Amino acid sequence: MAKVTRIDHVAILVDDLQKTVDFWQDALGIQLAHIVDVPAEKSMVAFLPVGGSEIELVKPTTDDSGLARYLEKRGPGMHHICLEVDDIEGMLAHLKEKGIQLINETAVDGMDGRKYAFIHPKSANGVMVELYELPK
Amino acid sequence: MAKVTRIDHVAILVDDLQKTVDFWQDALGIQLAHIVDVPAEKSMVAFLPVGGSEIELVKPTTDDSGLARYLEKRGPGMHHICLEVDDIEGMLAHLKEKGIQLINETAVDGMDGRKYAFIHPKSANGVMVELYELPK
Repeated sequence: MAKVTRIDHVAILVDDLQKTVDFWQDALGIQLAHIVDVPAEKSMVAFLPVGGSEIELVKPTTDDSGLARYLEKRGPGMHHICLEVDDIEGMLAHLKEKGIQLINETAVDGMDGRKYAFIHPKSANGVMVELYELPK
Repeated sequence: MAKVTRIDHVAILVDDLQKTVDFWQDALGIQLAHIVDVPAEKSMVAFLPVGGSEIELVKPTTDDSGLARYLEKRGPGMHHICLEVDDIEGMLAHLKEKGIQLINETAVDGMDGRKYAFIHPKSANGVMVELYELPK
C-alpha cells in the first residue's frame, strides 16, 4: 500500500518576503537556498532546507489568486503541510475509497518531475495537506 | 553558534481527536504512537511519528485555556511548528539580541528532560514557533 514517508515541507504564507527571510535566516540561522518565481501559483517562494525537510515561504505576487485571498482573510501564517508519499496515485485512489475529499483528483505534474495533489481541508479537519512523490 | 537541526513536529489543534486520528492514521496510514493527557496544557495530545518528525494532534480538554480560545477563534488547523535546536539557551540569547519577542524568555522544562520555549508569532510573521532541545 502507498505510504507517507516524511514531512517534506511546511509552507508559510507571508506578506513581506524579505522580513520573513530575515526571521528564518538571520535570526534562526536556517540558510535560504533559493527564491523562485512560480507564475503558475502567482507567487514567489523562498526555500529554506533544514534537516531533510524545508520551510517554504510563499508570497502572492498578485491580488487575485486563492493564496492572495487566503492571506487577505486569515493573515500571514502556516498555510499547508506537505507529506512525501512513495506512490501518489495509489494514495489518491486509497483516499477516494475512504471518502476523503481531494482538491486534485489526480496528481498534478510539478517542478523537477515531481507529482503533487492537495487534500481538501474539509476532510483533514481544517488542515491543508499536500502530498507529493519524487520522480523515480 | 546554536543552530536549528530539523523540524521536530507540526502541531495541529483539533476539536475532535478521534475524527482527526481517523484521517491521519486510517486514511493517510501514519500510525498513532500514543495519546497523552497533558494537564499542564489542559490538552490531550496524539503523537503520530513519520520519517523522523511527528504530527501532533492537540485537543483542549477545558474551555478556559489559551489553546481552547485559539480553537474557538480560528477553528481547527495548524497551530505551531516545532524546531529542534542543539543549544536552546544559546539560541534564546541570540534571538533576544536580534530583538525577537519570546513567549518564554528562558527554556521551560518539559517531558522526558527536554527543554522548550516559544517565539511570539509577532516576531515570526504570524507563525507560532516552538524550539526544543533534547537532553544530552
